[in-house]
Amino acid sequence: MPTPRIIEVKESIFSDNNREADLMRKENKEKGIYLLNLMSSPGSGKTTTLTRTINDLKDKIKIGVMEADIDSDVDARTIAEQTGVKSIQLHTGGMCHLTAAMTRQGLEGLEPDELDLAILENVGNLVCPAEFDTGAQISVNILSVPEGDDKPLKYPLMYQVCDVVLINKIDTMSVFDFDLEKAKANVLMRNPKAKIFPLSAKTGEGMETWENWLLSEVQAFTGAAK
Amino acid sequence: MPTPRIIEVKESIFSDNNREADLMRKENKEKGIYLLNLMSSPGSGKTTTLTRTINDLKDKIKIGVMEADIDSDVDARTIAEQTGVKSIQLHTGGMCHLTAAMTRQGLEGLEPDELDLAILENVGNLVCPAEFDTGAQISVNILSVPEGDDKPLKYPLMYQVCDVVLINKIDTMSVFDFDLEKAKANVLMRNPKAKIFPLSAKTGEGMETWENWLLSEVQAFTGAAK
Repeated sequence: MPTPRIIEVKESIFSDNNREADLMRKENKEKGIYLLNLMSSPGSGKTTTLTRTINDLKDKIKIGVMEADIDSDVDARTIAEQTGVKSIQLHTGGMCHLTAAMTRQGLEGLEPDELDLAILENVGNLVCPAEFDTGAQISVNILSVPEGDDKPLKYPLMYQVCDVVLINKIDTMSVFDFDLEKAKANVLMRNPKAKIFPLSAKTGEGMETWENWLLSEVQAFTGAAK
Repeated sequence: MPTPRIIEVKESIFSDNNREADLMRKENKEKGIYLLNLMSSPGSGKTTTLTRTINDLKDKIKIGVMEADIDSDVDARTIAEQTGVKSIQLHTGGMCHLTAAMTRQGLEGLEPDELDLAILENVGNLVCPAEFDTGAQISVNILSVPEGDDKPLKYPLMYQVCDVVLINKIDTMSVFDFDLEKAKANVLMRNPKAKIFPLSAKTGEGMETWENWLLSEVQAFTGAAK
């Protein structure tokens, strides 16, 4: 397994992020590249969820992954070793989020024309990534059970901008004071259209429902483009 | 129990944050006010840890709490209801961190001259709060077991700037792949002088060691000042 490539992504302070994001979204739509932006707190299980999702879908669609981190290449190595799909590490140089321009730099390093699904694992942070449109077709948040069912109350913008919320680590529900119905209601209060999938990336419970939904989204998208 | 006061704190873009932080630290040292800055990921147990610590120490030292959040006053209400000490809510208006100037505005609302220990619960975020000196005497991080033992690898600055790391939720160690010795080594790699206290704010395990250490720190500090 080759060592994942590391790209030092830099922000252009002159760019208009929303315009850049819209442009990239339009280009990727024409090319049939479904870009998914995955956001969450640190330690919610982004990499584990991705690994399982990719292994279950990689024979059906072509997938590539960008792992954004302030430092380290732990996640890109994990994805490369455990799934075999192309993965690159984006170093943000201390930045707390990715902009559309930074995402574009990363996506170019992935040779995206061969891909159906490009996944951006954003910096683990519930505040800043929500403020910057990455140009993705879809934004997904992972809310893990140990964090508590009140997170949508405390981080409103994150839950407003996410189309999908994966409630992860449901195998640990008995250990924590986590009310699944309350969590769902809090998510829907921020975004009434949000799709919610309770699952455990560790045990596999609930993964199939989420993966089937994602697969059909990507296939409909790429089918419309090509 | 009165409703906690909410202060909308605003950043002065003209201020030099490091100078403001040093000035406040010096003033508080003269007044004998020990300001503690508590930082962590969302959902690591900051409020639960504070509630237990305050209830165990409030008869020995005078404590006040500032709860910083983007929105909501859930945490300030919890602290007020469960401990009875003075607590105020700081709304950051979407900001992902607190500056020294914002902390000063909050501290003034706490009537700090009557306090030995003022605690700032910072925004749940491992990136941005680490970049801004709040003027606290000490910075404490909570690393909770479900987040994983690799967090100091991924969020280097946070672990460089924290004097103390509380490893929380150790009662759930059997449920997660968390290596306590590896976590300690990762923390010490970032800051060889860090003090590390494994504990569970839920069961109480390990709390006494941490509380005794904090109490002796505060008493030595206020004793030197007054």
